[in-house]
Amino acid sequence: MIVRQAHVFREKQGIDLKTEHCVEAIDPAAKIVEGRTHEGKKFQMPYDKLLLATGSSAIVPGLPGFDLPGVMPLKTLEHGRRIKHFIRDQHVKKTVIIGMGYIALEMCEALHARNIAVEMIKPRPNFLPWMNEKLAGMIQKEIEAHAITLHLGREVKQIEKSKEGLRVICPNLELEAQMVLVAMGVTPNSQLAEEAGLELGPNKAIAVDRGLLTSSPDIYAAGDCADAFHVVTGQRTWIPLALRANRAGWAAADNVTGKETTLEGVAGTAVFKVLGLEVSRTGLSMTEAEKYGFNPMEIMIESRTRAHRHPGSSFIGVQMVGDRKSGRLIGAQMVGKEGAAHRINAVAVALHAGMSVEAFSQMDLSYAPPFGPTWDPLLTAANQLLKSM
Amino acid sequence: MIVRQAHVFREKQGIDLKTEHCVEAIDPAAKIVEGRTHEGKKFQMPYDKLLLATGSSAIVPGLPGFDLPGVMPLKTLEHGRRIKHFIRDQHVKKTVIIGMGYIALEMCEALHARNIAVEMIKPRPNFLPWMNEKLAGMIQKEIEAHAITLHLGREVKQIEKSKEGLRVICPNLELEAQMVLVAMGVTPNSQLAEEAGLELGPNKAIAVDRGLLTSSPDIYAAGDCADAFHVVTGQRTWIPLALRANRAGWAAADNVTGKETTLEGVAGTAVFKVLGLEVSRTGLSMTEAEKYGFNPMEIMIESRTRAHRHPGSSFIGVQMVGDRKSGRLIGAQMVGKEGAAHRINAVAVALHAGMSVEAFSQMDLSYAPPFGPTWDPLLTAANQLLKSM
Repeated sequence: MIVRQAHVFREKQGIDLKTEHCVEAIDPAAKIVEGRTHEGKKFQMPYDKLLLATGSSAIVPGLPGFDLPGVMPLKTLEHGRRIKHFIRDQHVKKTVIIGMGYIALEMCEALHARNIAVEMIKPRPNFLPWMNEKLAGMIQKEIEAHAITLHLGREVKQIEKSKEGLRVICPNLELEAQMVLVAMGVTPNSQLAEEAGLELGPNKAIAVDRGLLTSSPDIYAAGDCADAFHVVTGQRTWIPLALRANRAGWAAADNVTGKETTLEGVAGTAVFKVLGLEVSRTGLSMTEAEKYGFNPMEIMIESRTRAHRHPGSSFIGVQMVGDRKSGRLIGAQMVGKEGAAHRINAVAVALHAGMSVEAFSQMDLSYAPPFGPTWDPLLTAANQLLKSM
Repeated sequence: MIVRQAHVFREKQGIDLKTEHCVEAIDPAAKIVEGRTHEGKKFQMPYDKLLLATGSSAIVPGLPGFDLPGVMPLKTLEHGRRIKHFIRDQHVKKTVIIGMGYIALEMCEALHARNIAVEMIKPRPNFLPWMNEKLAGMIQKEIEAHAITLHLGREVKQIEKSKEGLRVICPNLELEAQMVLVAMGVTPNSQLAEEAGLELGPNKAIAVDRGLLTSSPDIYAAGDCADAFHVVTGQRTWIPLALRANRAGWAAADNVTGKETTLEGVAGTAVFKVLGLEVSRTGLSMTEAEKYGFNPMEIMIESRTRAHRHPGSSFIGVQMVGDRKSGRLIGAQMVGKEGAAHRINAVAVALHAGMSVEAFSQMDLSYAPPFGPTWDPLLTAANQLLKSM
């Protein structure tokens, strides 16, 4: 999402920025891109180095009614503005969100804060399927405690106009709303790259090496359109999050302009806030660990966010995954009213370092009564996991 | 501080706990401890393995008036109770704290919360001398904004009784108070060990190896009385904090009972809250880094605790130290209204892993708007430090 305007690039940075030019094809052999302007005029442009930063798009299924007014994805700044104006103009009081991922959960909080009723719906039966079941249950409970209804295992078949505005139709379930948010995930914009014969990685993201170079010499890709190496598996992965996109942009710029830069990869660190809870994860879930050939074991411990009897102390849950074969720490998840978002970074660093669970259990983590128990919840989890392994 | 009662050890755990037995000498050759009961009766006790867990004591100088009623250290639970009762019984409205370390700063907050006026005093001219000057300045400002007066560079020469209660006397300065807290630091209780010929480490703490064994076979030491290895310098250090003490207790118990356990060491991670600020550190300060033969370089960056324009976003300052010779990350310090306490743990893990500043700059740390900018303040600091090095 570019929040600076075109003239800044042109005037301040001397970049020949072409807006209203849509690239339709890349010819890697001839080192040319070609396309049309918004007025339909064809153009061709040669390049020495090419950077693909095509991003990702919200997934909107081609089912009946997903094109009705009031049915809206949320990916771009423009989408956000449209939603805001629609809520204001239509006096929206009732919404259905399709999907229960990060964006869906962040939106349910935002809508709830505006006193808009929310129902959420998804086709699969498990809420946050990548998450430890007990931790996922805590989040589900928190959401339901705010009078938000979660419909799990319900596949939307179509959306219709109705008296109230819109009707979301599933087998044996119909939901009424004035606005429907489509938060069914994103997909990389890699079609141009694919058509040009570039190698694709997981989820059809553009495959890049550690220097952001694609399979074609002189073509780089960075941002949500490109894949990355996972520091735990060493394999390609596609985790379209802001820090990696931003970092890849800088690194690609370095490489294009001749300063060699490589990126180590991603640990899969992610964090979000939903209502009163902080939720965080890094590394592999149990399912992912099994998929990648680890022999994983997980534990979940319950601890406190502050020292015993310190005012404001509340529950924090930590899941931790280790590999029984190598002893390595390979993932963690946390849920709590406070202290879950930044704590996860200690595990992320350990994953980058390829640390064992035993080594992690020896970390000298911070302690003071307002911030946790003497043994940080992460250490309690590591000690517990070590015993089980 | 033992908060469980003697009978728990005797009845539930079958431990022959001897209270009111004061050990006065250890004879490592004969494997005997000897001493007197509180009634003055001499005793001798043989041992197979001996664990010294003598803790540390508050430093109280032998100057005139430091033994007056109302002049109180804060180290034990009993000290805490005495202070609480004194405040209640004497209707204390005005206090002087001698010292400006962790305990002093935590106490100034606790007293301020009870509407007790506080003046603080220390002999050296610098407030938190181990800290980056700008960060220390932020904390000083926060304290002074709460009408707490800091007297730097003032050495207390004596304390007298006065009309108000007590008079704290320095050259060219006299302070009146009803209560004086002595928070001048702690010293290890290592006299028994020293007299038995055991090797002492920094600050006269009992020197132990990674298995908590002292220089004498079959004598272990754990807790505030014992030293530790620093993971950055590899050298002995004495940092008497709760996590290490607790961890060393468990490890010594393992070793005494035949399960071989070693501890990696401490990173010097510490955190405290003072009024509206979280303060954290790990690794070496600039002064320490120079002392240990590094060629250190520090930077201090200012960032935000939440994403741009996110409500509640506030200032966070990060200092980071790298070694120019090896490229290693060797320390960090943070001050902010939120997010400084748990964030420091990411650096602590990196120090344990012996990570370079460059490697740390590649960490996949968490990002979501309520918790920080896209580039975590730690990453901004690492990038900045990398450029300067």
